[in-house]
Amino acid sequence: MKLDKIHQSQPSIALVLEKQNVLAIRDIDMPTQPAAGEVKIAVDTVGVCGSDVHYYTHGRIGPFVVNEPMVLGHEAAGTVTAVGEGVTHLKLGDRVCMEPGIPDMSSRASKLGLYNVDPAVVFWATPPVHGCLTPNVIHPAAFTYKLPDNVTFAEGAMVEPFAIGMQSATKAKIQPGDIALVMGAGPIGVMTALAALAGGCAEVFVCDIVADKLGVAEQYDGITTIDSSKVSVTDVINAKTENWGADIVFECTGAPAVFKTITQSVRPGGCIVFVGMPVDPVPVDLVSMQAKEVRMETVFRYANIYDRAINLIASGKVDLKPLVSETFAFEDSIDAFDRAVEARPTDVKIQIKFSGSDQ
Amino acid sequence: MKLDKIHQSQPSIALVLEKQNVLAIRDIDMPTQPAAGEVKIAVDTVGVCGSDVHYYTHGRIGPFVVNEPMVLGHEAAGTVTAVGEGVTHLKLGDRVCMEPGIPDMSSRASKLGLYNVDPAVVFWATPPVHGCLTPNVIHPAAFTYKLPDNVTFAEGAMVEPFAIGMQSATKAKIQPGDIALVMGAGPIGVMTALAALAGGCAEVFVCDIVADKLGVAEQYDGITTIDSSKVSVTDVINAKTENWGADIVFECTGAPAVFKTITQSVRPGGCIVFVGMPVDPVPVDLVSMQAKEVRMETVFRYANIYDRAINLIASGKVDLKPLVSETFAFEDSIDAFDRAVEARPTDVKIQIKFSGSDQ
Amino acid sequence: MKLDKIHQSQPSIALVLEKQNVLAIRDIDMPTQPAAGEVKIAVDTVGVCGSDVHYYTHGRIGPFVVNEPMVLGHEAAGTVTAVGEGVTHLKLGDRVCMEPGIPDMSSRASKLGLYNVDPAVVFWATPPVHGCLTPNVIHPAAFTYKLPDNVTFAEGAMVEPFAIGMQSATKAKIQPGDIALVMGAGPIGVMTALAALAGGCAEVFVCDIVADKLGVAEQYDGITTIDSSKVSVTDVINAKTENWGADIVFECTGAPAVFKTITQSVRPGGCIVFVGMPVDPVPVDLVSMQAKEVRMETVFRYANIYDRAINLIASGKVDLKPLVSETFAFEDSIDAFDRAVEARPTDVKIQIKFSGSDQ
Amino acid sequence: MKLDKIHQSQPSIALVLEKQNVLAIRDIDMPTQPAAGEVKIAVDTVGVCGSDVHYYTHGRIGPFVVNEPMVLGHEAAGTVTAVGEGVTHLKLGDRVCMEPGIPDMSSRASKLGLYNVDPAVVFWATPPVHGCLTPNVIHPAAFTYKLPDNVTFAEGAMVEPFAIGMQSATKAKIQPGDIALVMGAGPIGVMTALAALAGGCAEVFVCDIVADKLGVAEQYDGITTIDSSKVSVTDVINAKTENWGADIVFECTGAPAVFKTITQSVRPGGCIVFVGMPVDPVPVDLVSMQAKEVRMETVFRYANIYDRAINLIASGKVDLKPLVSETFAFEDSIDAFDRAVEARPTDVKIQIKFSGSDQ
Repeated sequence: MKLDKIHQSQPSIALVLEKQNVLAIRDIDMPTQPAAGEVKIAVDTVGVCGSDVHYYTHGRIGPFVVNEPMVLGHEAAGTVTAVGEGVTHLKLGDRVCMEPGIPDMSSRASKLGLYNVDPAVVFWATPPVHGCLTPNVIHPAAFTYKLPDNVTFAEGAMVEPFAIGMQSATKAKIQPGDIALVMGAGPIGVMTALAALAGGCAEVFVCDIVADKLGVAEQYDGITTIDSSKVSVTDVINAKTENWGADIVFECTGAPAVFKTITQSVRPGGCIVFVGMPVDPVPVDLVSMQAKEVRMETVFRYANIYDRAINLIASGKVDLKPLVSETFAFEDSIDAFDRAVEARPTDVKIQIKFSGSDQ
Repeated sequence: MKLDKIHQSQPSIALVLEKQNVLAIRDIDMPTQPAAGEVKIAVDTVGVCGSDVHYYTHGRIGPFVVNEPMVLGHEAAGTVTAVGEGVTHLKLGDRVCMEPGIPDMSSRASKLGLYNVDPAVVFWATPPVHGCLTPNVIHPAAFTYKLPDNVTFAEGAMVEPFAIGMQSATKAKIQPGDIALVMGAGPIGVMTALAALAGGCAEVFVCDIVADKLGVAEQYDGITTIDSSKVSVTDVINAKTENWGADIVFECTGAPAVFKTITQSVRPGGCIVFVGMPVDPVPVDLVSMQAKEVRMETVFRYANIYDRAINLIASGKVDLKPLVSETFAFEDSIDAFDRAVEARPTDVKIQIKFSGSDQ
Repeated sequence: MKLDKIHQSQPSIALVLEKQNVLAIRDIDMPTQPAAGEVKIAVDTVGVCGSDVHYYTHGRIGPFVVNEPMVLGHEAAGTVTAVGEGVTHLKLGDRVCMEPGIPDMSSRASKLGLYNVDPAVVFWATPPVHGCLTPNVIHPAAFTYKLPDNVTFAEGAMVEPFAIGMQSATKAKIQPGDIALVMGAGPIGVMTALAALAGGCAEVFVCDIVADKLGVAEQYDGITTIDSSKVSVTDVINAKTENWGADIVFECTGAPAVFKTITQSVRPGGCIVFVGMPVDPVPVDLVSMQAKEVRMETVFRYANIYDRAINLIASGKVDLKPLVSETFAFEDSIDAFDRAVEARPTDVKIQIKFSGSDQ
Repeated sequence: MKLDKIHQSQPSIALVLEKQNVLAIRDIDMPTQPAAGEVKIAVDTVGVCGSDVHYYTHGRIGPFVVNEPMVLGHEAAGTVTAVGEGVTHLKLGDRVCMEPGIPDMSSRASKLGLYNVDPAVVFWATPPVHGCLTPNVIHPAAFTYKLPDNVTFAEGAMVEPFAIGMQSATKAKIQPGDIALVMGAGPIGVMTALAALAGGCAEVFVCDIVADKLGVAEQYDGITTIDSSKVSVTDVINAKTENWGADIVFECTGAPAVFKTITQSVRPGGCIVFVGMPVDPVPVDLVSMQAKEVRMETVFRYANIYDRAINLIASGKVDLKPLVSETFAFEDSIDAFDRAVEARPTDVKIQIKFSGSDQ
């Protein structure tokens, strides 16, 4: 039942990764008209993700290698400019954001609602698939989500990274009033902390060994930061919970050192969600997990999250605006990437904007 | 992403419901070639379902009215005879059974894995959609399931009704060794009992006020029948469970009288699954549910069940063969329907067969 | 393993319900010293619950009849003044609130973690058990919870009614960003709305046919009220959710009229939590539930909720202070009850205070 | 609410572990009368567990050191011979089996239903607590379970090790018809396979590198063995599941080598249950877990399992009798231990019997 995509293409300006370390703003062939079930979107804002930067600096991520020029970008919001046959929930002029992974919806995983783990997923800016740093994109309507009026394009382009935090918070099966610990105050750690807090936790502790990173998280009510270069995370959690432990621990560093002692901070019967991706196998003290009957969840992108993420932004429960560290015009997008390569500890998100105005 | 179905058709023999009470075996236009993502199947066996019979005798089920001639039948197994473009998991000669409901896989419900509650589902033999009592059908490969060699076509055609029992057992969230009570020993009650037993229950009690119906269930190890015209179901359950109650109660009668006292047989914190469909609103004693904090689940057809149903039949854990009460040749399918209209208490399933031999 | 409670008693002042309609502030025998595993608490604040009022005005609730004088009150906070043998997590001077139901912790239900549905539960101010409207009470330490410094006694005494909302929100299995509808803006409706909002919902709609009741809920960010005497609840929910429905509906009215159409507002695969307790069986349109495969949960008091409820109050995510409508001195507690009998639409909670100062 | 246990003791014969490598059958002081909530049991059959053997051969397990003489044994069945005050569900002459871990039922973990992870658990034959290899024991009634007439003492004494398999199967959240893989055909592997099969799996694959161990598992319908010294487990699972993977993998070896590749055999969205206890931290390829969004569960003993385990044995769905490899008289219990020390590959359970006859 996979849509047979026969798109006509024509040259369009785009941010093209020619090969490792070489970016260009130049014309490249892109599809022009939506097929049945698709929409065309004038892109307004695109966030720069760590994976975009990694392709730029390394030319590959694991088995995914940039062998030919590829348009970067997968965190995007914009405006619907054309609607394919059979699309009913979107119309011209709708402000939208897009889920960058397109599964085969007739696959076994997709039928189960787990379309994110469908091996056939086609994902923006993952070789050889072009991304969205180009003024117009064609996308399946089923993976294009309407933004309420009070959600800006900048926020819309943040839904993608926030969705990873949301997937993590969803997998955790938070019970109202739980106490959570997030290990790592990088962009994903902050997104996860915000999702966990809005998603039902009473209080979220965020720790990092780089004190400068904690400032971003610190500004949110309900988040308490721990400088783990100076104090013991376990001690803080124990003091808070009468030595019971956090209900949920989100591992967002991927740093092997963390895994040795992670069980100390979780309560008996609690849950650890592994969000960070350690490059190599990490040593896990399984017996300590078993002694507490810890449940461990893992996260791979997200599925069925965008609606709920947008709900939280629109209702004001989650404020992502402070996380946009700087916005560049599309013309300056190579500068944007160079800034992202040398990110400051306080940087969460660099964005690139096509239009001059927001909203 | 809904497949645009432009099928060429030509006359084919079929069992056609002309209008209420009038069946005919005659030619009617049916599609001939599979489109991309589809397969063509030579139908071998089709079960007669209560809904088929109801359309025959009443010309409608609720809002679904037979306004023009419609081919009946939706419980089918057969052999793949043609394969559309892009189909990889099926090939010519594969013995298969088919899931009769085709959802829009890009709908919000389908994305969640709940494709059975997608309002856009197109279902065999539900007006105005033709069913499968015809020698050849075209079907999406994603909803066509390979039968292992040791599963007969007769069993394959039983997967559909068994899937309802399986959906019920899945919704119940059985814990290994649970005790279940099934209210109603009709076909759905028996299917549910078998699914609950294979699905983890230690013992399943089946009750009915018609003693003759209990014989079918009684022949299975692990099922204990209760003639509820003679003994109190609650007494039997209490005796078995030291007055604790059954972990799970499956309501398969749809009879309003049952709902008044259903809470008596379930344990504190237990689950009631409503499988039977009462025509009108039924009075529920909610306070008695609350006093035990009962969870109530409802069932509508099935989703993501066929694989697991076939696993259980193939492994021998579930034996559906004793449930085939009589098999008619396609030529005699009007007789088959008339037999089903006047079903005997011990009838579970009447089947219609196209070929002369099984396997 | 139930503690054999042999307490010495002596006369103590208390609010005593002599019989239907007759309250007295007078001496009555109460236990004086904590046994092993118990603590003694100087009561500071007690909330007046609808059940207290009902015993006052009707002399009974269902099978529970006031046959002899009984001390009222079960929503309490105070200060630990004596500690029984073996108690380790509490000490003299701890500010605490108390869970009023004491289960047999060795019962089958308690072993499962479902101690609220243990039939042996002994509950304050449920005949023939005395309540806590007396200056000192003896209570099991395991059901006495420490209040953080920033939680007032008034808030501590609100944990009990809030716990019902929390139990409802917990049973709903909220996913981060869900949309909820609460039917009924009475005290339990408001508590449930606050718990659902803090517990992960992006937005909670609260409807009532009495517009005056909506004002209390309206003051909270994230809660949208619906005057269901004027507009269609279903229309509002459909507009908000693109005709998909609310993820969760909390039924907090117990009014039979609500049950007929409740399914209209819930999404396919959604959940309805029955919190309100209709006196008689109510007609439920089961087929409409089945068509959406709705899960229904029921709520009976709470279990394992107090810690998480206190977490949410302490972190500031839930502000219960606006819900205290008026506070009476213990000496005026009969007036407090008479005020509660003639409650104003905007009344949520009347409290009675023993000491002169809070904190 | 912890029962204050003041037991009178007197010398009784028992199998005493004097110190590492030294066993004696001799008199030792044991309690004689049940307190309130307790029962006295004449022990009939006791199974020898790997932990008993380990204390014998090593004098310790991790932090638990045999510093003074200790009675061994914790897998027991017998007959009630005295009943303490307040015990209602047991009476003289009841045939029973006993759960060897006694938690503090008022602890935070116990209140949640997770009494197995209560740090205060007192467990038979875990230093310094005496076990049950003595003719009479005193035990809390709440952790003493009645055996149906058709369950033998030998089976009753098998409930304890089977309960670990049951806890594993319960944690897996099996859906009816799932396919499972059990890694390791030792006693726990076999128990887990039987629990998974009875608990809802359609088919359970059991692999081991020691072919001789597979024979025990092989005799059960529904279990397929894999000699992993000769064939690839992943290949077998892939062939069975059309390259989808097993729904559940139970790791029952604790062998570090297994952990490197365990993700290969599990399906996207599947579950791995870690039952085996590797001594040291093991390297886990977390990224491969994440790519499939695998859920990982851990198991520590069991809670709320005995009732359901007994249900399955009584109904005949689980036959543990073939797992008793040899039975010794109590007088020969040192021989029994020496046999267990040099266990044959086909040994599953050695039992010790006090009486001359079963039933």
